[in-house]
Amino acid sequence: MNKIRVAIVGYGNIGRYTLQAIEAAEDMECVGVVRRNGAENKPAELESYPVVKNISELKDVQVAVLATPTRKVKEYALQCLALGINTVDSFDIHTQVVELRRTLGAEAKKHGAVSIISAGWDPGSDSIVRTLVESLAPKGVSYTNFGPGRSMGHSVAVKAIEGVKDALSVTIPVGTGIHRRMVYVELEEGVDFKAVEAAIKADPYFVDDETHVQQVSCVDDLNDVGHGVNLVRKGVSGKTHNQLFEFNMKINNPALTGQVLVNVARASMRQQPGCYTMIEIPVIDMLPGDREEIIAHLV
Amino acid sequence: MNKIRVAIVGYGNIGRYTLQAIEAAEDMECVGVVRRNGAENKPAELESYPVVKNISELKDVQVAVLATPTRKVKEYALQCLALGINTVDSFDIHTQVVELRRTLGAEAKKHGAVSIISAGWDPGSDSIVRTLVESLAPKGVSYTNFGPGRSMGHSVAVKAIEGVKDALSVTIPVGTGIHRRMVYVELEEGVDFKAVEAAIKADPYFVDDETHVQQVSCVDDLNDVGHGVNLVRKGVSGKTHNQLFEFNMKINNPALTGQVLVNVARASMRQQPGCYTMIEIPVIDMLPGDREEIIAHLV
Repeated sequence: MNKIRVAIVGYGNIGRYTLQAIEAAEDMECVGVVRRNGAENKPAELESYPVVKNISELKDVQVAVLATPTRKVKEYALQCLALGINTVDSFDIHTQVVELRRTLGAEAKKHGAVSIISAGWDPGSDSIVRTLVESLAPKGVSYTNFGPGRSMGHSVAVKAIEGVKDALSVTIPVGTGIHRRMVYVELEEGVDFKAVEAAIKADPYFVDDETHVQQVSCVDDLNDVGHGVNLVRKGVSGKTHNQLFEFNMKINNPALTGQVLVNVARASMRQQPGCYTMIEIPVIDMLPGDREEIIAHLV
Repeated sequence: MNKIRVAIVGYGNIGRYTLQAIEAAEDMECVGVVRRNGAENKPAELESYPVVKNISELKDVQVAVLATPTRKVKEYALQCLALGINTVDSFDIHTQVVELRRTLGAEAKKHGAVSIISAGWDPGSDSIVRTLVESLAPKGVSYTNFGPGRSMGHSVAVKAIEGVKDALSVTIPVGTGIHRRMVYVELEEGVDFKAVEAAIKADPYFVDDETHVQQVSCVDDLNDVGHGVNLVRKGVSGKTHNQLFEFNMKINNPALTGQVLVNVARASMRQQPGCYTMIEIPVIDMLPGDREEIIAHLV
């Protein structure tokens, strides 16, 4: 079997878990990692892999997994697509997905490549569930409840407040799409906690949510990458009301993101040139192996 | 907007709910119903629809929803596909799905038509969830737990036992894919309940399950088309264990089946000629409306 040749672009948390998912996949091989600093201070687990500064230094890459910060996705994707390399990413700014899909779609088609965007767990696998349950009950209301788990965006917003040395914002689901924010802050010496607490509660990220702020001596001691989702829909199938659907998960966040990225890297080899979100990809394309065997096993 | 022209073949429970789902869909119209007895004893809700004995009597049908018994699906599908009409069905014999897909796929391609098979809730929408969660944790174990709700197959098996006038077998989930069977029987006069109970418990449909049999005076009084699913997977994403996924639903069974059939009727208009199961169809294709709007709303 010819293995799918995958490169990882960016080697933070998601990049590391993506490598694990590639190593666990029998139909794929990692052909290299692209890091800003190249092979400098190369981590032990990358010993047997080429580590470079630019993807053009790697040979015969078929798919690039963009494990970069979300705001860097477009730039790297355009660079890879121009080389005819498929890209996958977990771009997570919901309001900009359509625009990114247009931009990358045009470039992908120009070079006969495929891009699959916003492929994490939300947006990503949750999007598939949201679409499915909306189709099952076309009228009704859905709620996506997140947590308990760390919110990167909220944590970064707190860290930006003056006097905050480190911060963690944990999202707690209280149902119907409403979330409580539990904020843990480690302060610079001499900083007034009450002032920081007030600044956090006034921040646009927090102002509309029930927010509790606690001072701790070491934020890193609270570090846990577990997360959760509770997605519910109550609605109408045809003319029949009170149809109830619910999806729950309790997961290691970056491990699931890495797995989804590997799944869509595989799926990218089976699509026509263009740019896709996960709801535009048949779920069977994310699995390795013979299609008839998958159908016999899972349908 | 040109509405999708749909015919319903077979007008039992599923056919009736399919009509409701078509009437609730803005992008579709029912162009007629095919019944064994044609317009004879036409139900009130079919007043405004042509009711015929053969699909060839209806004009410009684009998709036929086969709301027939499962064992009649192949025959009717081949007949429709030969006329260049797309077909959708909820064929539910899991072990024969691959073979049906091959047979209908060949015929569909020959006539430039599309067939989507095994499109109910299980097989059907559950199959999408099973495939998705298997992709999210490629190693691990999944369980599909059904109920509480009526099992048609088990009820029919009990009705076949001598002395049984009417019967209902309710499936109760006890977890990890194991089910209890609650069987309610209405007996012919003079029949020995203990003998019937023993015959049921010895039947291949029941012999491996915990089975409780109760005699009732009127099985019809217990009639309820509610059903449920609890689908769980615990497994490994990449190299990270203990990833937990769960899908639950509590639904009116034929209403959901009718809705799914209408969804795949719509999706059939967007596929290349051939035969597909639901896991081979992008979930976005089951929704009406503009793709970019759906992506902005659901991704």
